[in-house]
Amino acid sequence: MTSGPGDAVLVDAGLLSPVRAGTPVEAAVCDTAWLQAMLDAEAALARAQARLGVVPQSAARAVTEAARAELLDLRALAVASRETANPVVGLVRALTGVVARDDPSAAEYVHRGSTSQDILDTGAMLVAARALRLVRADLGRSAAALAALAGEHRDTPMAGRTLALQAVPTTFGLKAAGWRKLLLDADRRLERVLAEGLPVSLGGAAGTLSGYLEYARADGFFDTEPDDAGPGDGGPGGAGRDAGRYADALVRAFAEETGLAPSALPWHALRTPLADLAAALAFTAGALGKIATDVQTLTRTEVGEVAEPAVEGRGSSSAMPHKRNPVLATLIRSVALQVPVMAAGLTQCLIAEDERSAGAWHAEWQLLRECLRLTGGAAHTAVELTAGLVVRPERMRDNLGLLGGLLVSERLSAVLAPVVGRAVARQVTSEAAARAVESGLPLYKVLAADPRLAGTVDETELAGLCDPADYTGAAAALVDRALRP
Amino acid sequence: MTSGPGDAVLVDAGLLSPVRAGTPVEAAVCDTAWLQAMLDAEAALARAQARLGVVPQSAARAVTEAARAELLDLRALAVASRETANPVVGLVRALTGVVARDDPSAAEYVHRGSTSQDILDTGAMLVAARALRLVRADLGRSAAALAALAGEHRDTPMAGRTLALQAVPTTFGLKAAGWRKLLLDADRRLERVLAEGLPVSLGGAAGTLSGYLEYARADGFFDTEPDDAGPGDGGPGGAGRDAGRYADALVRAFAEETGLAPSALPWHALRTPLADLAAALAFTAGALGKIATDVQTLTRTEVGEVAEPAVEGRGSSSAMPHKRNPVLATLIRSVALQVPVMAAGLTQCLIAEDERSAGAWHAEWQLLRECLRLTGGAAHTAVELTAGLVVRPERMRDNLGLLGGLLVSERLSAVLAPVVGRAVARQVTSEAAARAVESGLPLYKVLAADPRLAGTVDETELAGLCDPADYTGAAAALVDRALRP
Amino acid sequence: MTSGPGDAVLVDAGLLSPVRAGTPVEAAVCDTAWLQAMLDAEAALARAQARLGVVPQSAARAVTEAARAELLDLRALAVASRETANPVVGLVRALTGVVARDDPSAAEYVHRGSTSQDILDTGAMLVAARALRLVRADLGRSAAALAALAGEHRDTPMAGRTLALQAVPTTFGLKAAGWRKLLLDADRRLERVLAEGLPVSLGGAAGTLSGYLEYARADGFFDTEPDDAGPGDGGPGGAGRDAGRYADALVRAFAEETGLAPSALPWHALRTPLADLAAALAFTAGALGKIATDVQTLTRTEVGEVAEPAVEGRGSSSAMPHKRNPVLATLIRSVALQVPVMAAGLTQCLIAEDERSAGAWHAEWQLLRECLRLTGGAAHTAVELTAGLVVRPERMRDNLGLLGGLLVSERLSAVLAPVVGRAVARQVTSEAAARAVESGLPLYKVLAADPRLAGTVDETELAGLCDPADYTGAAAALVDRALRP
Amino acid sequence: MTSGPGDAVLVDAGLLSPVRAGTPVEAAVCDTAWLQAMLDAEAALARAQARLGVVPQSAARAVTEAARAELLDLRALAVASRETANPVVGLVRALTGVVARDDPSAAEYVHRGSTSQDILDTGAMLVAARALRLVRADLGRSAAALAALAGEHRDTPMAGRTLALQAVPTTFGLKAAGWRKLLLDADRRLERVLAEGLPVSLGGAAGTLSGYLEYARADGFFDTEPDDAGPGDGGPGGAGRDAGRYADALVRAFAEETGLAPSALPWHALRTPLADLAAALAFTAGALGKIATDVQTLTRTEVGEVAEPAVEGRGSSSAMPHKRNPVLATLIRSVALQVPVMAAGLTQCLIAEDERSAGAWHAEWQLLRECLRLTGGAAHTAVELTAGLVVRPERMRDNLGLLGGLLVSERLSAVLAPVVGRAVARQVTSEAAARAVESGLPLYKVLAADPRLAGTVDETELAGLCDPADYTGAAAALVDRALRP
Repeated sequence: MTSGPGDAVLVDAGLLSPVRAGTPVEAAVCDTAWLQAMLDAEAALARAQARLGVVPQSAARAVTEAARAELLDLRALAVASRETANPVVGLVRALTGVVARDDPSAAEYVHRGSTSQDILDTGAMLVAARALRLVRADLGRSAAALAALAGEHRDTPMAGRTLALQAVPTTFGLKAAGWRKLLLDADRRLERVLAEGLPVSLGGAAGTLSGYLEYARADGFFDTEPDDAGPGDGGPGGAGRDAGRYADALVRAFAEETGLAPSALPWHALRTPLADLAAALAFTAGALGKIATDVQTLTRTEVGEVAEPAVEGRGSSSAMPHKRNPVLATLIRSVALQVPVMAAGLTQCLIAEDERSAGAWHAEWQLLRECLRLTGGAAHTAVELTAGLVVRPERMRDNLGLLGGLLVSERLSAVLAPVVGRAVARQVTSEAAARAVESGLPLYKVLAADPRLAGTVDETELAGLCDPADYTGAAAALVDRALRP
Repeated sequence: MTSGPGDAVLVDAGLLSPVRAGTPVEAAVCDTAWLQAMLDAEAALARAQARLGVVPQSAARAVTEAARAELLDLRALAVASRETANPVVGLVRALTGVVARDDPSAAEYVHRGSTSQDILDTGAMLVAARALRLVRADLGRSAAALAALAGEHRDTPMAGRTLALQAVPTTFGLKAAGWRKLLLDADRRLERVLAEGLPVSLGGAAGTLSGYLEYARADGFFDTEPDDAGPGDGGPGGAGRDAGRYADALVRAFAEETGLAPSALPWHALRTPLADLAAALAFTAGALGKIATDVQTLTRTEVGEVAEPAVEGRGSSSAMPHKRNPVLATLIRSVALQVPVMAAGLTQCLIAEDERSAGAWHAEWQLLRECLRLTGGAAHTAVELTAGLVVRPERMRDNLGLLGGLLVSERLSAVLAPVVGRAVARQVTSEAAARAVESGLPLYKVLAADPRLAGTVDETELAGLCDPADYTGAAAALVDRALRP
Repeated sequence: MTSGPGDAVLVDAGLLSPVRAGTPVEAAVCDTAWLQAMLDAEAALARAQARLGVVPQSAARAVTEAARAELLDLRALAVASRETANPVVGLVRALTGVVARDDPSAAEYVHRGSTSQDILDTGAMLVAARALRLVRADLGRSAAALAALAGEHRDTPMAGRTLALQAVPTTFGLKAAGWRKLLLDADRRLERVLAEGLPVSLGGAAGTLSGYLEYARADGFFDTEPDDAGPGDGGPGGAGRDAGRYADALVRAFAEETGLAPSALPWHALRTPLADLAAALAFTAGALGKIATDVQTLTRTEVGEVAEPAVEGRGSSSAMPHKRNPVLATLIRSVALQVPVMAAGLTQCLIAEDERSAGAWHAEWQLLRECLRLTGGAAHTAVELTAGLVVRPERMRDNLGLLGGLLVSERLSAVLAPVVGRAVARQVTSEAAARAVESGLPLYKVLAADPRLAGTVDETELAGLCDPADYTGAAAALVDRALRP
Repeated sequence: MTSGPGDAVLVDAGLLSPVRAGTPVEAAVCDTAWLQAMLDAEAALARAQARLGVVPQSAARAVTEAARAELLDLRALAVASRETANPVVGLVRALTGVVARDDPSAAEYVHRGSTSQDILDTGAMLVAARALRLVRADLGRSAAALAALAGEHRDTPMAGRTLALQAVPTTFGLKAAGWRKLLLDADRRLERVLAEGLPVSLGGAAGTLSGYLEYARADGFFDTEPDDAGPGDGGPGGAGRDAGRYADALVRAFAEETGLAPSALPWHALRTPLADLAAALAFTAGALGKIATDVQTLTRTEVGEVAEPAVEGRGSSSAMPHKRNPVLATLIRSVALQVPVMAAGLTQCLIAEDERSAGAWHAEWQLLRECLRLTGGAAHTAVELTAGLVVRPERMRDNLGLLGGLLVSERLSAVLAPVVGRAVARQVTSEAAARAVESGLPLYKVLAADPRLAGTVDETELAGLCDPADYTGAAAALVDRALRP
């Protein structure tokens, strides 16, 4: 009822996902890359078994040479995978065919003792590891750009805004330092996922490695009679110490051949690595989204405190030639709105029934790829955004003046309280603020004329207290601390 | 920093999403189809304007002829869209170039007065409408297959199961009728979305249609001096009755040219159509997921009451030749685990700020496509599943017998209560059930021997009461009602 | 291991959810209300059975009188429900006890033939129906307030903003009309859920109504020998026409006694009503969220075009006495960020295995309550927001002037294109815009001085074309149409 | 329009959330606990400032003594929080009143220099830390119970199941070891969140600590003239080294007084701690959900390999006295279906605009509480489940026999391949399996009669190869390794 494998191959141009169109992560996680990663897993498995002596070295070489995505019909594999719910069954058949063409005797060693999930999961981890490295490199670039911005604008005052309104002054340096902090947090979470090791998957048909062991046993790798001393030595079927040793050795060899980490237990239905990836990627997308949202807010026509880098043709509108849209921030924000829900979908796949789920496993693949691809695209886009961000201190200062001196009402309360009492201080400040807005007079002049303050603080002092740019708290020190290596 | 537009085009083979690989919906929503739908929107807009006299008919023809996806460089458009955050700016440029080659005078009428979002949203609605029709056709096929199953198995008893345990008997017919009901519910929700009309998008730069109107005015469509009688006639800029009439006429003409519905208000930032699609698709995915989950449960080795259709090569495992995996149900369930969270992402895009969101709009595109593609793939897969489902009444009956007569304890309580009182009835039943399990005796024999029931219900009657197959309540009548046309 | 039922009862003050603290919906969905609704379901069931003659009228009266939440120990029921995974088992026991105190003979008719899910689901529908009516009433109030705003500001020009930047002018009336449209859309979706009928749940142990039928049969309601002519008459156990008729009659009577709708099939595992509620509530929350987000944007200090109603103490900050925070919009937006993901959780519960899910059903309850409570709180809060919104046309006009005449560049392109050609028109406009910003001259003066326009459009005409307030397209007409009854 | 603060207080009995009704985590995160935690934060802040000399020790003592939840009107605070969008403004007012009653001079030191978010966030971290410790203790108990089960059943063979079907044998020990691994993974993630330190929140009005500094400065804590040597010394307003030192000292003192960690930068809008909590809790819920789902599958009537602990009244059904429902697993699974989507909602709050979000912050509170409460309830419930789980090795063995020897077809392929070639081995095995099912003969007898195997493997050997219990791969060794301390 579905079309045949010979069908025209569809294009993944990124038309609906410009955030990643043409970025390196896109190629790293595309269908071809995923196919290659699964082939890499097959080849690594053959080599690992060859290191243990259960597959001939020549066969492992033959498999390795044949394991090239361009030798297989990707579309045919994908369409055929509807018959088996995953693409590995067809991949093994096709790979075996390629191997057999060159080295018929090697063909029987393809996928020896293995199962689809070992290959697909290992391939997924290879793809994820590659993509994470790209993401981290881009986060590093953005963090460096933000460190520069934070340093340069350590003392650039601007309005701090809470609940959409100007609250008290802050500095752009502190804002940039905060953005950087989030990216460092994201990077640390990604680093941890990589450092703890994305693991190879090696469990065999139902997580006991039975197939791998059986071939090894059939090849004489084990004694027919397992020794029988104590725990760890046997059990039903003599699956004891020898089996354990062989299993250990195979996992280690497979890990070394792939560059992934060994895994303590087969994880076909224990989906910690997927959940960890989901969490770290959702965090990264959210962290980037915070920056993008702030950039958009500061870019607003009426605010105008930052602008995206001016690039010929960038940000132009089909209808409004005068606009320079914050397109980079827009692309990034679109990611932050997509990834967390997709990551939730991945996390839910922890609820994988039995030794392999009939559906939860299959739901992961595309969600993982999208989380990698979108987050990777956003991280790449953020490099351009942070490196070229145009900051406008003069607009920041203008905006700081919009409320007269109202932004310092907190300070005035604090300073005046010991002088005239807390309640009076608050009242004086509040009334003066209202009068300043009505009259257009500077706040300090209104205050200086208030009889309740007569003989307490003089006009010069009040003028200083009322200068928002002079009231940035510990902002500079916080920037210094945040940038300290 | 990103790769150039000449980059190798990536392949979308469906490798990680077998549920849709090779299905009709896949082609209907692919990048090429989306590009064509946007071009269809541009052509329809030119024709609509031609009908109103503000674009020459020849120009509209030229645009229509040029609006073919194969004449444009899809990948270049996608990569270039990073500069503008959407692909329409580049599309307009490219389309204008194609038009200009054949009819230079027509070129200026491309995208006249329009804005990116009008084109992208209208294209999205065209794609969605096409995909929804595919989904509905497949739901109809599955519903028909389930109606047949429900009728055929109207009286096939099986265990009703609640909280994972056999509870009381039901029939397979009632189960199939329930599955069908869900699909009819889904179909009705999709039908409603189509019937209420997926709308054209026509708002111009910020939802006032100003560009469309201005070109019309410049072309003399309006009097320079608007008449000025009463509300509706004017307002600032005389954008009154005439403007309203023209806007109405343009929306209607655009709707007719596209086959979509007119829209009462421009909806650039009023995202009802997207949220409606999200809800209907998530419902459909969930409804299909319910069926898939039930099929998997009934397929379990220990249950064995249904099996997926046997097809050569279908459901085979790379490691276990004996298995016939429920692959169709697995593919469908993978969709039910992905679509609801993605639909939530779409629904969140209702929170679109201003007259066009900087990010929420952009987050929709891919989520919508995936919801359409996955749900469409699942609906297509369900046709095979429902049409070929193998039902095993004998296994159902065997399983019904597993608990002796325990499944009828509810009935026994009901029948015995008026005879011996509610409390005693419950106690007798409960104790007999325990004794039957221990002793291996049929429940009715244990009951017949209970002195508390002496002289009340005889053994024959008890045997009848204890036959689970005889205790299916209103199942048959419910099936009849559900299947009534 | 858990605390006993005598434990101190915890308080649900709404401390972490101010959006609903003290609103009517809060009381309508609280634990006590839910308990009462389940008791209402029990009483209605007894009365329905009494109408059919299988329960004595006096017993139905006794159950109805006893079914009062204040007679039961809510906390004890909740804690005890850990033993049965739902609170109905304990509720039935407790209710039976209350009934027995007054009318021992009535006690056996409590929950006759029923099952926990029938009661809990019916109770949930009662609660949902009540809450939906509250939400709809509040949406109606907000829609009326927005209609007034839209009418009043039909011709109030303001900047239309796209991708965070001023784009072309629009009117505040059109914005308010759009907000209203979303609320009408939401209301229509809620109305539809109510109009199609939130259904009673009546399925018995596994959806065949077997328990209800068995008691009726035991009471002689059915002939012992069902007639046996044709389909619909029988089936295993004679569960044929008579059973069907009785089941129909019972469902109808139960529906009438509760005020809910009858349901075509038992829906213990066919969760359409829940998914429909989820979709309508998520839509409503999102629609309200759009309004809240726009209000916040327009409230920003630098924009200042609207303000929340001034109420003594409202919006004050613990640190900044000068601020009047947009607290209503903030509360509403917090809902729009919570409900869609919770609604996704509800939608996922469509994947309910078997005749009753062991977990998916149980996951629904709290998610439903929160979706009702949060959306209801937001709708209530929106009434205050829309009714009291302060609109500042003068700030709108000031902001329109910020870019000189740049907002009309689209119009200039349109007007000049026929005069000097499209390309030159665009270039002239673009260059003039840049020069106007640099020089501080009004755009129309710069244009008037451009030699390329010499002898085409005079300065007066240019001044008119460059007035943003004169360029609001069809905004006024769109408002009129949107407000037309 | 909303009800007044004197309203009847609603009850939070846990009626709709039995998984947590009466568990310790419920009390730890209830409204009263949250209020107390915020009061603890106020008191700790006063003590911290007293340590630095800017608040009199007597005032700090007075605040500490007054900071008791029972002295405040919780409901009034909650309802009043609608006016300010958060409950801290009212809390400060109320606390100040209580302090003033006993020590009027201390009243002005309440909340000195602080902001609502500092108090609410610090309170939230206190609550979260307490809840996490409860969760971890329960996870530890479950892990211990699972370790015992894994050890006891190290060699208990059972069917490994993949895609809903029996695949190859495994052991129950390995399954239990896998469950334990997931809980250890969850515990490690929670431990990490605690070990890295849930931080105090200390930023003041907009994250610069300006209020705290200003009071300190007003009290003469700083020199009027900051020294001016090099970076770190000053900046606008002299907010340099001294400010930095004071800010550092205050953060450290506040952290010590609360028992939380200091934070490098104020995190009002850098929501790493919330996202980390969300991720760890969603993981934990998912891990518990995996166990619950497996328990339910194994509990199914037709499988019967495990049962929940038998407790009087536990798992009883309102309709079916014979059932012992897996209620603990059901409660746990209901959590695993709720928490991941709620955690996604929390993660999305990373996109917090400005220095404090108008809505994203407010959306966090209830989501966090629910994630804590549901996960905590599930963890508590899992202790009962794992400690009392009834395992039935005999049913496991029976089920292993259901497919004849088909579960070892993988093994047969492996063993026979070297003898008769891979293709023939696969064909022989596959045909024999089919014949064994048809004929009812044991697989090994069918194989022994196959002429293609004549003279290769004898019947005894075949009988051994065909015993599923003898084919558990490395299961025993994997268990040993997993349990190694």
